[in-house]
Amino acid sequence: MIVVMKKGASPMQVEAVIERIELTGCKVHPSVGEETTILGVIGDVRAVNIAQIQLMDGVDRTMRVARPYKLASREFNPTDTLIRVSDVVIGGNKVVVMAGPCAVESREQMLETAHAVKAAGATMLRGGAFKPRSSPYSFQGLGEEGLQYLALAREETGLPFVTEVMEPQMVPLVSQYADMLQIGARNMQNFALLHAVGEAHMPVLLKRGLMSTIEEWLMSAEYILSHGNNQVILCERGIRTFETSTRNTLDISAVPVLKQLTHLPVMVDPSHATGKWDLVEPTARAGVAAGADGLVIEVHPRPEEALSDGPQSLKPERFAALMTSLPAIAAAIGRSM
Amino acid sequence: MIVVMKKGASPMQVEAVIERIELTGCKVHPSVGEETTILGVIGDVRAVNIAQIQLMDGVDRTMRVARPYKLASREFNPTDTLIRVSDVVIGGNKVVVMAGPCAVESREQMLETAHAVKAAGATMLRGGAFKPRSSPYSFQGLGEEGLQYLALAREETGLPFVTEVMEPQMVPLVSQYADMLQIGARNMQNFALLHAVGEAHMPVLLKRGLMSTIEEWLMSAEYILSHGNNQVILCERGIRTFETSTRNTLDISAVPVLKQLTHLPVMVDPSHATGKWDLVEPTARAGVAAGADGLVIEVHPRPEEALSDGPQSLKPERFAALMTSLPAIAAAIGRSM
Amino acid sequence: MIVVMKKGASPMQVEAVIERIELTGCKVHPSVGEETTILGVIGDVRAVNIAQIQLMDGVDRTMRVARPYKLASREFNPTDTLIRVSDVVIGGNKVVVMAGPCAVESREQMLETAHAVKAAGATMLRGGAFKPRSSPYSFQGLGEEGLQYLALAREETGLPFVTEVMEPQMVPLVSQYADMLQIGARNMQNFALLHAVGEAHMPVLLKRGLMSTIEEWLMSAEYILSHGNNQVILCERGIRTFETSTRNTLDISAVPVLKQLTHLPVMVDPSHATGKWDLVEPTARAGVAAGADGLVIEVHPRPEEALSDGPQSLKPERFAALMTSLPAIAAAIGRSM
Amino acid sequence: MIVVMKKGASPMQVEAVIERIELTGCKVHPSVGEETTILGVIGDVRAVNIAQIQLMDGVDRTMRVARPYKLASREFNPTDTLIRVSDVVIGGNKVVVMAGPCAVESREQMLETAHAVKAAGATMLRGGAFKPRSSPYSFQGLGEEGLQYLALAREETGLPFVTEVMEPQMVPLVSQYADMLQIGARNMQNFALLHAVGEAHMPVLLKRGLMSTIEEWLMSAEYILSHGNNQVILCERGIRTFETSTRNTLDISAVPVLKQLTHLPVMVDPSHATGKWDLVEPTARAGVAAGADGLVIEVHPRPEEALSDGPQSLKPERFAALMTSLPAIAAAIGRSM
Repeated sequence: MIVVMKKGASPMQVEAVIERIELTGCKVHPSVGEETTILGVIGDVRAVNIAQIQLMDGVDRTMRVARPYKLASREFNPTDTLIRVSDVVIGGNKVVVMAGPCAVESREQMLETAHAVKAAGATMLRGGAFKPRSSPYSFQGLGEEGLQYLALAREETGLPFVTEVMEPQMVPLVSQYADMLQIGARNMQNFALLHAVGEAHMPVLLKRGLMSTIEEWLMSAEYILSHGNNQVILCERGIRTFETSTRNTLDISAVPVLKQLTHLPVMVDPSHATGKWDLVEPTARAGVAAGADGLVIEVHPRPEEALSDGPQSLKPERFAALMTSLPAIAAAIGRSM
Repeated sequence: MIVVMKKGASPMQVEAVIERIELTGCKVHPSVGEETTILGVIGDVRAVNIAQIQLMDGVDRTMRVARPYKLASREFNPTDTLIRVSDVVIGGNKVVVMAGPCAVESREQMLETAHAVKAAGATMLRGGAFKPRSSPYSFQGLGEEGLQYLALAREETGLPFVTEVMEPQMVPLVSQYADMLQIGARNMQNFALLHAVGEAHMPVLLKRGLMSTIEEWLMSAEYILSHGNNQVILCERGIRTFETSTRNTLDISAVPVLKQLTHLPVMVDPSHATGKWDLVEPTARAGVAAGADGLVIEVHPRPEEALSDGPQSLKPERFAALMTSLPAIAAAIGRSM
Repeated sequence: MIVVMKKGASPMQVEAVIERIELTGCKVHPSVGEETTILGVIGDVRAVNIAQIQLMDGVDRTMRVARPYKLASREFNPTDTLIRVSDVVIGGNKVVVMAGPCAVESREQMLETAHAVKAAGATMLRGGAFKPRSSPYSFQGLGEEGLQYLALAREETGLPFVTEVMEPQMVPLVSQYADMLQIGARNMQNFALLHAVGEAHMPVLLKRGLMSTIEEWLMSAEYILSHGNNQVILCERGIRTFETSTRNTLDISAVPVLKQLTHLPVMVDPSHATGKWDLVEPTARAGVAAGADGLVIEVHPRPEEALSDGPQSLKPERFAALMTSLPAIAAAIGRSM
Repeated sequence: MIVVMKKGASPMQVEAVIERIELTGCKVHPSVGEETTILGVIGDVRAVNIAQIQLMDGVDRTMRVARPYKLASREFNPTDTLIRVSDVVIGGNKVVVMAGPCAVESREQMLETAHAVKAAGATMLRGGAFKPRSSPYSFQGLGEEGLQYLALAREETGLPFVTEVMEPQMVPLVSQYADMLQIGARNMQNFALLHAVGEAHMPVLLKRGLMSTIEEWLMSAEYILSHGNNQVILCERGIRTFETSTRNTLDISAVPVLKQLTHLPVMVDPSHATGKWDLVEPTARAGVAAGADGLVIEVHPRPEEALSDGPQSLKPERFAALMTSLPAIAAAIGRSM
């Protein structure tokens, strides 16, 4: 941690800051210049209340040097974390693909989609039973009935599934059915929910908030990890920017940035990122080329009848075509599919 | 609602779209040009699945004309909604001020602050007992003990208080103590929580999400209203932009925009918007000048010892000074304080 | 300047960094911790190539401590700069108002507007003769003819005027007519143009770029100042954000932030910031309440016939009404109009 | 074009709007609903002043249906435009790579880099002789001397080069040396400069502005095209967002979006987009996978000594390694390198 004193800060002010910091057991090394004095702080700076120091007389600015997360950091755990879901391994050499409808709408729709994505090579199913919708008047999901259809689809295809959980008290119910819990973008900083899934013994797919920095995202992962669950997978799904030609803006460089900062697996969701089915294919390819450990893709047998997110859903044949082009890209960077 | 057909869309494609729409009881008026055909749709377009229409062959784009919220709209309720909290009225001619610490830290801190802001003219208290913090290692609030100190402060000063509720199952507990429930920025689209406070019989202060559009914000208000609670107050608290010299960017024009779109009261929180105590005073004044119905301001007796948000907290004497400058601004636009 | 070494950086790597920095005459104070080593750099760090240091082996991060601008900084010049244009003083106690049409369209339109805004109390005229338009097919301004009408309006009303200059070679022509040169938002980082107006002996109104941070904006001011022209006025006119209900988002807190960082006057343009005439009034008031030294407001006698920016232009009677409400707000913060 | 009338607009108001529009020769089809009246406008709507209509009594909103650019649109020219520079073809099946230093610093640096990137397989050189720098105190480029070194590098390697031109009056000088003119991000809406290069007979590399929408970008291309130069190449180089872990955010989906909207070639600059050399490789691959026609990459023999943008420059050996991984990705989507 670093403290920059104001021009003209008095020696007494500098002394007061040093004293306050050293109370925590940290050591301070002052660099006294003609114009500015800089204090380098060494030790366990978590004990220092940075905001307090910033308000002391004579202090211009404070800067954190250490990252605010620990368990999620690459430094804490240099080896890539591998997450197993049935016989699927996420975070290893093999690139995985989770596919399925945005919302589970019926038994038939779920089974038809599941068989189609299985045939095309998907490694997991996805589908929403509880749907967060910005309008109270939109379809809110089938609830537990949806979970039952997902379980049936798993039984028929052998593919494990991920589904969203929206509130702490629903974690037990959803965990009973699902193989992996999804925290949606709008809940990335729902700390009560992060706490609850942190106590579940189950992999968690943590989607990035529309408005969240990579650091905040890793802090949310830290919440889950710090409550004892270290099976966290990060999923980039587009951030909000000024550009309106896509639903969101896929932050493709988040993939290699995360690979440097954390040991957790990183996936890309090109469907939510772009919001348009005809942009899913090129961005899915870009995700694999950038080094993502997997993709989450929305597939619907009849997108024009979908109750949610139809415009961004691929038809099964489109999805199959996309799947055939990915292995060559994975191979180009030394990975398999 | 409007449907724009692609150049070269066939008459059969146009016909199919019209048929599908008219199944819902809406009427379609086609405008056939040499290059483009536009379909004007009249009637209750909520019955039309826009996303489905957008995916039909020959369709270029669809555009909604009606606003997606109803109960929250000025058109639905042209008269300003007045919300009463004890003897405070929010949304009327008088500009209100809610003040207090970011977090309730102790009995003494809460009482000292409450007496100070009361003396300076505040109309309500604020203070967090349950704190959403981006780090799992930060102070998370005193919980129910904090609510008790808030209640004590109310008893001693006569000022009602607002405090945040973070999860659906805590609504009963918090409602037992508080005069108004706050939904924090990070929970603006926590739909389970919106549903829960929608069933409470209590005013709700709905803060704007950091990266939420005004329309999404009104949709969140609609969630609460549609579950039976029409005592919703909107609070602008800064949005996330590329600018880093302030914590967030106060969207001051949101105040008059909301005054056009909705009948609900609108407040401004200059503390969270700027993140710096020395910017609170000018932006608080700007809020009143722009027509806000009130302000939410963080005050702490010793900001340099605050466990949360110290840098943006005013000392009581600064708060008192601010309060003396506001009535003249309110009077300049025909309001009182 | 501060250099943070990587965990595990070798003493030789630390030494190499220190050596490279000390070649420039700066002094380095190392703070060696168990995990991290921090180097505090004191002296004239402008001589240090930060980017180079950042690429040296063992270096984790570098951080600038000093601000990158000097002449524009409050520290360099603690006294507010006053800028005189004829008998108007900008930056003093009196809040000024520049008003007029977006584009000069005709002799009649310009004169009619000029007389109207003069009667309502405006202190300067504004109007565009050369118009930057995002479409090559839009009206591009009357050119020199427009300058002549502006000069005529000045003659008839006694009000000096500001007008935009779009390219370096036009500076002489525009300077011949105008009392103040405007650099438009899209040209804020047109460095050739900044250089050219830096050599003019004339006040410059430097609008903030849609995408520019406050620091970049002050760097652009520094360009002008460093070429010898210290008559620079900053004008906040809205930044681009994700919100679409207004044309741009007025960054109201930029006003007090700039008042801390620089000695240059700061104005607010609520017309471009909001893009809608019915939002101009509340945001203009907010600008004065936040401490702006003046306002720039678009006025057109018949907005519905305007060739540019009609939707954000006030009719003269609306402008007059606005002008009557401002003095009380200015007075509330100890200023006059 | 569509006009939405306000609820309760009178028949006379509707009539007035129709009359005004029909004066331009367009035809209006009204859809009269119980609550809303929608007017569909057919014909050459460029003649209609939308802003004017928007201000008429009873009008709620107007919406453009047609795109505001024509020459740049895919509809105007369905075939991909191929641009030839010496024997390089841009926009065809072969993916091209332009590489070189951010700034030309010396004869030796330029030649060394040129030979290295040629050996690694680059198809063109890049290098800045005139540098737009946000600080007046930074290295501003060698000027014409830099152009001479670029020409020498071309002579020695046979690779044509692109270099930036910053002001209209420099177009003749730069054109004398360069094979392609670059318009930098900060000049994307420098309309005088767009006009000037529109009259040059030379390919233009038009970089996207940091905060420009895709539509605005295509409007800037339209400026160049409308002045007679149809050799325009678009280059995505990252946009400004709230995320700070990268210099900018690479908008990877802009590539397929542009492929739908325009016939012009599209390139990606991963160096400026990320600002960090170790993110260039994965994002360059993503660019090719997403369908870009080429890449622009910064290479410097000794990045730690670079006078500009060292942190984002690849060393020649890194660049060579990147080049070996790209052909397989190109091949995976049916392209060559």
